[in-house]
Amino acid sequence: MTRKQFETLDLDNLEQNLQQAAELIAGRIRAIACDPVKQNISFEELAAIIPCDLPDEGHGPEAVIGEVARHIEPYSTRIGHPRFLAWITTSPGPAGTIGDMLCTGLNQAPLSFKGGPAATVLEEIVLGWFAGMFGMPEGWGGTIVSGGTMANLMGLTVARRVHAPQVHARGMQGLERPLVLYVSDQGHMSVTRSAVLLGIGEDNVRAVPSDSACRMIPHELEKAVQQDRRAGRLPFCVVAQAGSVTTGAVDPLPDIAAICRRENMWMHVDAAYGGAVMLADELRPLLAGIELADSVCVDPHKWFFVPLECGITLFRSREQQLETFRAKAAYLGAENPHDLKNTTFILSRANRALKVWFAFRSYGRLRIARIIRRNMELARQLYRLMCDHPEWEPLAPAPLSIVCGRYTPSAAVRGGWTEQQIDDLQLQMIEELERSGTALLTPAAVNGRAGVRVCIANHRTTPEDITLIFNTLTAIGTRIARPDEHETAGE
Amino acid sequence: MTRKQFETLDLDNLEQNLQQAAELIAGRIRAIACDPVKQNISFEELAAIIPCDLPDEGHGPEAVIGEVARHIEPYSTRIGHPRFLAWITTSPGPAGTIGDMLCTGLNQAPLSFKGGPAATVLEEIVLGWFAGMFGMPEGWGGTIVSGGTMANLMGLTVARRVHAPQVHARGMQGLERPLVLYVSDQGHMSVTRSAVLLGIGEDNVRAVPSDSACRMIPHELEKAVQQDRRAGRLPFCVVAQAGSVTTGAVDPLPDIAAICRRENMWMHVDAAYGGAVMLADELRPLLAGIELADSVCVDPHKWFFVPLECGITLFRSREQQLETFRAKAAYLGAENPHDLKNTTFILSRANRALKVWFAFRSYGRLRIARIIRRNMELARQLYRLMCDHPEWEPLAPAPLSIVCGRYTPSAAVRGGWTEQQIDDLQLQMIEELERSGTALLTPAAVNGRAGVRVCIANHRTTPEDITLIFNTLTAIGTRIARPDEHETAGE
Repeated sequence: MTRKQFETLDLDNLEQNLQQAAELIAGRIRAIACDPVKQNISFEELAAIIPCDLPDEGHGPEAVIGEVARHIEPYSTRIGHPRFLAWITTSPGPAGTIGDMLCTGLNQAPLSFKGGPAATVLEEIVLGWFAGMFGMPEGWGGTIVSGGTMANLMGLTVARRVHAPQVHARGMQGLERPLVLYVSDQGHMSVTRSAVLLGIGEDNVRAVPSDSACRMIPHELEKAVQQDRRAGRLPFCVVAQAGSVTTGAVDPLPDIAAICRRENMWMHVDAAYGGAVMLADELRPLLAGIELADSVCVDPHKWFFVPLECGITLFRSREQQLETFRAKAAYLGAENPHDLKNTTFILSRANRALKVWFAFRSYGRLRIARIIRRNMELARQLYRLMCDHPEWEPLAPAPLSIVCGRYTPSAAVRGGWTEQQIDDLQLQMIEELERSGTALLTPAAVNGRAGVRVCIANHRTTPEDITLIFNTLTAIGTRIARPDEHETAGE
Repeated sequence: MTRKQFETLDLDNLEQNLQQAAELIAGRIRAIACDPVKQNISFEELAAIIPCDLPDEGHGPEAVIGEVARHIEPYSTRIGHPRFLAWITTSPGPAGTIGDMLCTGLNQAPLSFKGGPAATVLEEIVLGWFAGMFGMPEGWGGTIVSGGTMANLMGLTVARRVHAPQVHARGMQGLERPLVLYVSDQGHMSVTRSAVLLGIGEDNVRAVPSDSACRMIPHELEKAVQQDRRAGRLPFCVVAQAGSVTTGAVDPLPDIAAICRRENMWMHVDAAYGGAVMLADELRPLLAGIELADSVCVDPHKWFFVPLECGITLFRSREQQLETFRAKAAYLGAENPHDLKNTTFILSRANRALKVWFAFRSYGRLRIARIIRRNMELARQLYRLMCDHPEWEPLAPAPLSIVCGRYTPSAAVRGGWTEQQIDDLQLQMIEELERSGTALLTPAAVNGRAGVRVCIANHRTTPEDITLIFNTLTAIGTRIARPDEHETAGE
């Protein structure tokens, strides 16, 4: 039997099928700025539309690409839309998308150098770029993971290994003094989730109070550490936020570093979002002190405009990293000092470095930096609009590109609304804006007060988009607060 | 300023760039069966070839695609080559590759239903297919993760939560009795790695002895559990292998299930590789008993021929799963009962379901099942070749598609070689085969004896490939064992 007659999973019309997929992607990206940002459809309605049977006989890729075009693409949120400003999810630059296509096309398995020679080198190159950006000293280490949660987990795992090496063999059960971890009350939920996973427990994560600008108060950190020491616990790690998820706050990194040094604690910086400012020379001082960290989390798939999934952990010491993750097994074959299996928790992994390398080399550092800078200017624009409007108030400073504001319509003041009613209004405004297809935002809670959160990590957002969102939100809020007046006006 | 004049990361020649990438991928796949399987190049040599600067000004995607074609693609191991039979890494079916391209092209963020309505539905559809295949009862849950290590971790995390709920708040330090986990001495390293991560510790993972067919011995499991109970420890979980990484052994699942029920332990089945047989009706009895598991790990990116990365954890109880992973935060917005953020550890995630859905619908269940069946026949072919050859011996039965064998050349017997010398020979044979570009295999250690491991999870491997590998290995081994005779013959 020749290879040709042999049944494989190869496709007769591979070139055409790839071309069809490429056209679908191009069409999607070309129309990404069209409204609506997101279709209004429920899970149940959509489940009735998307074909759900696993057929015995295949339909062939042409037919299935057709299904994607008809039933999947339209119900895929336009995350690259200029007014998608939710979570910290970014519009990917299309060069990153192409890099990611090549990643799956080459399908490397760089757990071992042999499984992806070029992929292994690319990971070292890309990590080198980030280590340089973040001022890591010689002997640094790093790993590319799926995103911020995994990147934070990797940092905390090495922290635990270094500060409680006996845990590896004996488990957390073998510890006499419970480990305690500190993060500001603005910390990302992945920090607590990681602490729970690692067996540290929610009760041993301290939410250190933050100031009015949502930054951790160093004195409060010191107090908490002393308290825990007196109680016989073992303070071992502080997670500093460099771009908090709610407001983009940057903790006082040099102060925290000094406390960590004095108290012999690991300093992990969660710069998943904020780390992108390190790409722009004049913005770097915003994160001054980050070079003192023992580990840093930073996500290319956030404000670097690389498509999902892509996160990075940098380590001050590659030796500590390898000590934590070294993987040995006969079936893995002979060791190569560059094997990526020794650098992280998972074994099989895609060549995620490729899309970062591809995007950065295609666009160049300065072009991406210009977009980051402009996103910050757009945030200042929105912040000023809120300051200048009598019914709006920013809920916190906006040091990076996230703005949280609260709208209190004068009609509500006249009507004697409670704070709770005004809280509810913020959510209604966001939901109505979303239903209109104009923009996708998320809510925020700052110091117990609800607001609208606008996260501008989007290369397509213009000043006009910001004005449109602000005016539309204001109009919606006004109308909700004066339903009768509005109805009258409409008649 | 119009949108057009505004600097974004959009590409002027998007269609052409996508087309160039598609052509590169098509060319790669069309030539995937060409030798060598892998280039012989060192990390240092390759690092000198791949462009490593982060340029201030971008080179544009055309130029960078050219760099990929010249410097990356040639040094990317041909994992789809018919004689790539290393680890458990499979040749992806090209329809899966197209599905993965569409995944990155649509760039969904289905942590929340809003971030990917279709992606959320697709994840439920695909998980439903697997839950059905594995006989999960009503109320099942599941999650799509990056691969087997994460899938095992997710299973063990829920196991810990259910059997030691206090750990969530108080940490493992709060436990009076240390948790103990059981896996056969053939268990995948990700099980111990997960136990270390979870704070259980290596010392609390029992390697239960296996029989001559590499299957866990139920009686030994019972003995170990009793011993731990007597010592005041808390046996909480057994990980059964359904397709062990070294030989493809399937543990006696019904016996293990009975012990777990009797001893009130969680039963997790690691079917990362072996789970694929559930796709073929007549092969399902091989994993009889798997339907009794509390959680199952199974990897679409292994023997289902889907490109990296894609793993799945199935849970008997979605309620227990949600109880473990529920994620709440103001900035995440209003809850939808289908939000994927509540089903797994990470938050941001790609739409991995799409490539599975795309590949399965394109090929149909039966076509993939035929390939799986043929891979098993190829394994039997190789096993018989080893049995029939006086110098070869299989090191273990080959119940699925992995064959481990040891070559003892008669010249070595005549020359009085030690076992260690024969061990070393196996590795030399594999390395020389690899250097020749003919095939990529990995070594194995079975009951302390080294061998050659051939993992046939490849839709392109033919009977002729198996014969070629067997004959080439034999020739290499013979020549190494008789260097003088060979040199004489060659003169």
